[in-house]
Amino acid sequence: MLNESVLLNGEVRLDESRKERCGFPEFIFGANKTEEQLVDISKSLFSRGKDILITRVNEKVYESIVSKLHSELSYDKHARVIYWFSKPTLEKSASQKAKIGILTAGTSDMGVAMEAKLTIEVCGFKAELFMDVGVAGIHRLLNKIDKIREFDALIVVAGMEGALPSVVGGLVSCPVIAVPTSVGYGASFKGITAMLAMLNSCANGITVVNIDNGFGAGCAAVRCLMIHR
Amino acid sequence: MLNESVLLNGEVRLDESRKERCGFPEFIFGANKTEEQLVDISKSLFSRGKDILITRVNEKVYESIVSKLHSELSYDKHARVIYWFSKPTLEKSASQKAKIGILTAGTSDMGVAMEAKLTIEVCGFKAELFMDVGVAGIHRLLNKIDKIREFDALIVVAGMEGALPSVVGGLVSCPVIAVPTSVGYGASFKGITAMLAMLNSCANGITVVNIDNGFGAGCAAVRCLMIHR
Amino acid sequence: MLNESVLLNGEVRLDESRKERCGFPEFIFGANKTEEQLVDISKSLFSRGKDILITRVNEKVYESIVSKLHSELSYDKHARVIYWFSKPTLEKSASQKAKIGILTAGTSDMGVAMEAKLTIEVCGFKAELFMDVGVAGIHRLLNKIDKIREFDALIVVAGMEGALPSVVGGLVSCPVIAVPTSVGYGASFKGITAMLAMLNSCANGITVVNIDNGFGAGCAAVRCLMIHR
Amino acid sequence: MLNESVLLNGEVRLDESRKERCGFPEFIFGANKTEEQLVDISKSLFSRGKDILITRVNEKVYESIVSKLHSELSYDKHARVIYWFSKPTLEKSASQKAKIGILTAGTSDMGVAMEAKLTIEVCGFKAELFMDVGVAGIHRLLNKIDKIREFDALIVVAGMEGALPSVVGGLVSCPVIAVPTSVGYGASFKGITAMLAMLNSCANGITVVNIDNGFGAGCAAVRCLMIHR
Amino acid sequence: MLNESVLLNGEVRLDESRKERCGFPEFIFGANKTEEQLVDISKSLFSRGKDILITRVNEKVYESIVSKLHSELSYDKHARVIYWFSKPTLEKSASQKAKIGILTAGTSDMGVAMEAKLTIEVCGFKAELFMDVGVAGIHRLLNKIDKIREFDALIVVAGMEGALPSVVGGLVSCPVIAVPTSVGYGASFKGITAMLAMLNSCANGITVVNIDNGFGAGCAAVRCLMIHR
Amino acid sequence: MLNESVLLNGEVRLDESRKERCGFPEFIFGANKTEEQLVDISKSLFSRGKDILITRVNEKVYESIVSKLHSELSYDKHARVIYWFSKPTLEKSASQKAKIGILTAGTSDMGVAMEAKLTIEVCGFKAELFMDVGVAGIHRLLNKIDKIREFDALIVVAGMEGALPSVVGGLVSCPVIAVPTSVGYGASFKGITAMLAMLNSCANGITVVNIDNGFGAGCAAVRCLMIHR
Amino acid sequence: MLNESVLLNGEVRLDESRKERCGFPEFIFGANKTEEQLVDISKSLFSRGKDILITRVNEKVYESIVSKLHSELSYDKHARVIYWFSKPTLEKSASQKAKIGILTAGTSDMGVAMEAKLTIEVCGFKAELFMDVGVAGIHRLLNKIDKIREFDALIVVAGMEGALPSVVGGLVSCPVIAVPTSVGYGASFKGITAMLAMLNSCANGITVVNIDNGFGAGCAAVRCLMIHR
Amino acid sequence: MLNESVLLNGEVRLDESRKERCGFPEFIFGANKTEEQLVDISKSLFSRGKDILITRVNEKVYESIVSKLHSELSYDKHARVIYWFSKPTLEKSASQKAKIGILTAGTSDMGVAMEAKLTIEVCGFKAELFMDVGVAGIHRLLNKIDKIREFDALIVVAGMEGALPSVVGGLVSCPVIAVPTSVGYGASFKGITAMLAMLNSCANGITVVNIDNGFGAGCAAVRCLMIHR
Repeated sequence: MLNESVLLNGEVRLDESRKERCGFPEFIFGANKTEEQLVDISKSLFSRGKDILITRVNEKVYESIVSKLHSELSYDKHARVIYWFSKPTLEKSASQKAKIGILTAGTSDMGVAMEAKLTIEVCGFKAELFMDVGVAGIHRLLNKIDKIREFDALIVVAGMEGALPSVVGGLVSCPVIAVPTSVGYGASFKGITAMLAMLNSCANGITVVNIDNGFGAGCAAVRCLMIHR
Repeated sequence: MLNESVLLNGEVRLDESRKERCGFPEFIFGANKTEEQLVDISKSLFSRGKDILITRVNEKVYESIVSKLHSELSYDKHARVIYWFSKPTLEKSASQKAKIGILTAGTSDMGVAMEAKLTIEVCGFKAELFMDVGVAGIHRLLNKIDKIREFDALIVVAGMEGALPSVVGGLVSCPVIAVPTSVGYGASFKGITAMLAMLNSCANGITVVNIDNGFGAGCAAVRCLMIHR
Repeated sequence: MLNESVLLNGEVRLDESRKERCGFPEFIFGANKTEEQLVDISKSLFSRGKDILITRVNEKVYESIVSKLHSELSYDKHARVIYWFSKPTLEKSASQKAKIGILTAGTSDMGVAMEAKLTIEVCGFKAELFMDVGVAGIHRLLNKIDKIREFDALIVVAGMEGALPSVVGGLVSCPVIAVPTSVGYGASFKGITAMLAMLNSCANGITVVNIDNGFGAGCAAVRCLMIHR
Repeated sequence: MLNESVLLNGEVRLDESRKERCGFPEFIFGANKTEEQLVDISKSLFSRGKDILITRVNEKVYESIVSKLHSELSYDKHARVIYWFSKPTLEKSASQKAKIGILTAGTSDMGVAMEAKLTIEVCGFKAELFMDVGVAGIHRLLNKIDKIREFDALIVVAGMEGALPSVVGGLVSCPVIAVPTSVGYGASFKGITAMLAMLNSCANGITVVNIDNGFGAGCAAVRCLMIHR
Repeated sequence: MLNESVLLNGEVRLDESRKERCGFPEFIFGANKTEEQLVDISKSLFSRGKDILITRVNEKVYESIVSKLHSELSYDKHARVIYWFSKPTLEKSASQKAKIGILTAGTSDMGVAMEAKLTIEVCGFKAELFMDVGVAGIHRLLNKIDKIREFDALIVVAGMEGALPSVVGGLVSCPVIAVPTSVGYGASFKGITAMLAMLNSCANGITVVNIDNGFGAGCAAVRCLMIHR
Repeated sequence: MLNESVLLNGEVRLDESRKERCGFPEFIFGANKTEEQLVDISKSLFSRGKDILITRVNEKVYESIVSKLHSELSYDKHARVIYWFSKPTLEKSASQKAKIGILTAGTSDMGVAMEAKLTIEVCGFKAELFMDVGVAGIHRLLNKIDKIREFDALIVVAGMEGALPSVVGGLVSCPVIAVPTSVGYGASFKGITAMLAMLNSCANGITVVNIDNGFGAGCAAVRCLMIHR
Repeated sequence: MLNESVLLNGEVRLDESRKERCGFPEFIFGANKTEEQLVDISKSLFSRGKDILITRVNEKVYESIVSKLHSELSYDKHARVIYWFSKPTLEKSASQKAKIGILTAGTSDMGVAMEAKLTIEVCGFKAELFMDVGVAGIHRLLNKIDKIREFDALIVVAGMEGALPSVVGGLVSCPVIAVPTSVGYGASFKGITAMLAMLNSCANGITVVNIDNGFGAGCAAVRCLMIHR
Repeated sequence: MLNESVLLNGEVRLDESRKERCGFPEFIFGANKTEEQLVDISKSLFSRGKDILITRVNEKVYESIVSKLHSELSYDKHARVIYWFSKPTLEKSASQKAKIGILTAGTSDMGVAMEAKLTIEVCGFKAELFMDVGVAGIHRLLNKIDKIREFDALIVVAGMEGALPSVVGGLVSCPVIAVPTSVGYGASFKGITAMLAMLNSCANGITVVNIDNGFGAGCAAVRCLMIHR
């Protein structure tokens, strides 16, 4: 999650930019950056007509940035993401059928799911949410499974015991990307329990990203869609 | 899991024996005892006409004990338990309908399930096994759920991500005792992952015992049956 | 701990509601919900005449909810629970003798004990507290043991070294549900030490719930009482 | 990794078999099974003309099984896998260009890489190995990067500090599945360090499977190829 | 636990020997030493008329050493200690009333208790064992508490949940040295759970030594007795 | 650390009070108590002429209590302890030579050292501090070692790598009680590293208390002095 | 990180001061000190004409100290360091070519890098920063590698998966000191993952300091430069 | 620790070999290699006249290799290293004064120290051992400190509480490389405690390598000597 625009002209020149190297636009990881830095980066991206996706920023920072940029930046409260999609990106995303499904075990997992969704959209794809289909009420998942089976890739978000990806993985053949969330308390250890559970899934071929890493799950799903460009 | 027969006659005399105190017969935890000690204990129990349940012993020890006692001790390979049930115990157990169901996620969890089953039987109750109903093939559980709902208490045994108790807990109203097993590898950490997952179950009122503790789960289930003596 | 009211009418229809599936009323886990969400949920429950139990909310949230609902919601400071019990529930609970005993090792464990108590009451049962009977002054427990032995199930709450369930488990035959609390400092690791100690209890058939999970312990105790409906 | 052949004829009937549910053939996890069980399973698969892939078995077990089956089972020493591919599977696999690349950081990671390769082949796809391209000699990777970029999905296997997926992830746009291995000593904690490092990769959209889980990585890669069946 | 006999004649000369520095005789930690080294050390000690205490050696090593030294070395199977006490040491130890009590929770803790006992004896003091007084049968401890209160210091040995020191600490005023043992399984983590529990004891002024460190507990008790030489 | 004054008159009557049972006065653990509770307890102690020692309270709480009690309560900022010693206690403590030495590795360990000192004094003994004698400047300890050797027991307080008790333990023969502190950062893990280091001390017979537990160390030292009452 | 100025004149006199003992000036670890203490120490250092380096203090503390000292103390926001270098130190540092290179993986690692840089400068040496050369964009490092190879020692700062030191270590022959940072989230465990990864580096001879310990890395680099004084 | 001999002739060609890149000869990490692989590698090295250093092999493997190569390979039992130094290497090493000192806390740390020593020698430098200078008998270190101060770099090897590097680091100005060893038991956690202690050393500028990593420490020391080639 780098924001560099260096023109490389040295001897090695493996590649010019991340877009060419690995197909992703520029993302901004907002967590460790000052408001000043975020304003500067946003201005620079705007001036170059680039899409904007800044993760992990609170509403106060968003308001401050908007007040300084007078722009049309949007903010998603649950995902804690600032974003602005260019017309081509919006059109690309809108023109297609959703290819990625995002499932959550509980309502508290929504922020992580939204971070994934916005990440997918800034890459020009579309995602659809299925909320609150956790395993303690298994009928909720089963009632929707036919629809869920139609996607090209699934992101499954769960905290606490992180069991949902195992059930889903046993019902579909597409890539299943599991995202542990820090939802829970006590021995949930801020998501460690869910993460370990997912890494030990008895369903074949489940893969896992870092705790609360909706952004990473979105990128991983996009990588799947980029296979046959 | 104490094996004492001390006659208490001091001043305090809270109680004479465990049977009276908490309703359980004498159990022998075989893991840290020598063959000699186990032979002595078995002789002592036989001479008093007591049931025998020695947990965590390998087959070699069993054979050695049998050769020295010329008795009708049985051995369960999967549970690694030596046992002998007196006629009253057998009759009490046989005369009733099974009240406790034991579910396992995979075949590898069978040893732990059998340890629980034998523990329940030596206490004069009956248990029924439901093998291989893990969450990655959720239809296997759902096909049997009506029968499973008829029990007074359920023991749910699972390794790896330990997800089965959450699904079961959302489908029944009786006590659900979850037993994590050391089945798995890598980040399963010999059952720690399953144990943590179970402690964080999103199903209400699931309780948990130590890793591979089929014996403890059996005792806990028996405690439930002893409520209305 | 789900708050859904979806009418299920799809093909699978395993069950209509949690009450039917596993006997529990609707509970609200307040920790990750906004005030707005909690107000909405409370209104919806009121309009349907349902009991209310919202766990893990602070007093400020309670006051805000009350001011918006003009209702008779109560709040328990120690348990940090908002609750309102309907007349039938109150009558059912009042009409019976307490069946569940709740023991705490120290005064600091009171909040967790109260969360368990209110959970039991909203399910229509009754519980009685025994405070401050920790093992470092063992006479305090022994003086009350005859009374404690009369309950159908016991919840034992303890932080620090979590030793109380082991002593209690050796003195009674009913189900013993151990609740580790985050009381302590340094190597108590916010309840992990107590939780591990309880999982390793040398008393037979002790079961354990998550750290500070008074709610879960209450549910588990209620499951025991629902055995012979 | 379930081996069931139960014909489901109950009321629910979500699906008939794993193949239909999630597209995978039957795999056998050999680690916790007895020789007898493995012989029985192998016979059953043979009789039905099914491909065979038994993971985590040592050479002695392989020899014993072969001696009892008089079959053409093969054994891969590094992967510790017994396998037999039917003619259709072999032809399907042979007829296509390799779509999955498998990279290893060191020679010691070869067993895990081979387990992934055989898993992919039994599913009818093809994989190509790139050994010993670890980051401490970065030129080895860079020299091959053009070829590596041509694959549809990459499995990256590394122990110790688990850094290779981060470098690879920054150079390609396809799915990157990272497999931590237990190679290392001391603070490598049998693969935990590599696993954590991979989960924290600074490259976008890397996903991770359990330690030494070449089988799971193979399945995950196959899921990617099954997207556009 | 150093075995040096270096004559110090440099400039600093803080002290000549451990005996003078901290009052202990020479001990040999056998675990990481070869048979040859242990034979050499034993010979050297014999030739100087010194007492011998070699901890953590198995019986085979003991037999080998005896066969090479033709001496009167003894071996304690449970403690896994080789020892020989000189006449003055034996007399000093025999002439006095036992001042240190050693309590164990279960029979499996006996080896650690014996290591402590022999350590105390080689220092010229006397210790008395109280076996199997664990907390799950609290009457066993209470029946002996009057006698236990007479000692100058207590060593309390326990595995599993490590609760015994807390109960004992609440009943006596002398130093209580808690020794966690690796007895247990699953989440006992080879003694870590017991160790953490003891460090969090709710009884005032309990101190703790390393897991299975009977030797260290013995030394700590001896330090208490050396206060008023 | 219990504050009870229950008159026991039941059947068991093991003992009347902690003072008789284990020789300590009443202590108040302030951390989990409300201001109201602390005021009530203080009043009750005053009215009975008892000494007061309330640990783990901040200055604001102290000021509030003083304003409500109009008493002569003192407060130690570093130790975060409220205390008041009766005339007999002060005289007992003053009349004797210090018997306990308290060493700290760095200035940041002073609060813990002071908590130990006040605990010792409320028990009627005397302690002397030796600050800043950490191992990275070993001459500071060596310069004072002759004086340090004169004490009956030593409390050694250290954070970070917790090495000081090992050096001290090799230079004295009296009891050495090691107190790990949460001083440090990163991999000091709030005192865990120091605690583990102390439990593994290569010096014989070092004992350890919980992290930052100056109170516990003080009690343990007092237990040593109470040996020959 | 000790601030003592004791004149040693006892018998042992190993050395007079740290400068003589190990070549470092006096440093102040600000984290656990009060403003008053920091003002006193600063005054004392000023009066003796000593350089000042106070680590881990926030801006508010800096402003308070400056207002009380009326001095020319500087403050580095990123490093959170207060410093003042005497003329000789400035001249020594300025007169030489930079010998130490400091590399960071990301912008968020800058504070730690600056702490290292200032530490090196107060010791009279010079350091040069190379920011944002993390492994997910490997060309950034490769473009600068020729320049990086000219330094006498390298400090490599990285959070998240901590992979940068491995790549750098494989490209240079000088000492490489790796500094894990707490940058990251979820399973980065505040730097533990990076620290473990660095300790397991597959590059030969990488050494590691504590998490975020830019100061320690600076000191270690200075030790390298002091080899041939 | 790579053993590659690939001739690089692609486009990137950062460097031809590790010797040029980072100055080290080829080392063989023997732990995960088969006898056949080790024989092949040894032959290849011999044929090219290269020095040989194979770490982590047991004596049986050594004997097998020697029997197949008929060579003059040596074996160090303690270090578990196979080695053969060419004449130029031997002469280079012999011709110079030892520049690196290796200190060990106890005799059990000798294997790790020897691994470091042989690593240094195969690089053409010389090292000198100082055994058994652990902190529990601090006079042993102090008696030798003048000699120890003469080295250009120090490797300090210690298990258990890992305190030695802190004391040494406070007495010298040269680079101090700390090596934690897995010597100890219980809460030493196979070297983790020592490793953490060393990372938290209160002495300035101590650096740390992986547990038991004598090889890595040797390389790190050699990097220090290569500063001014």
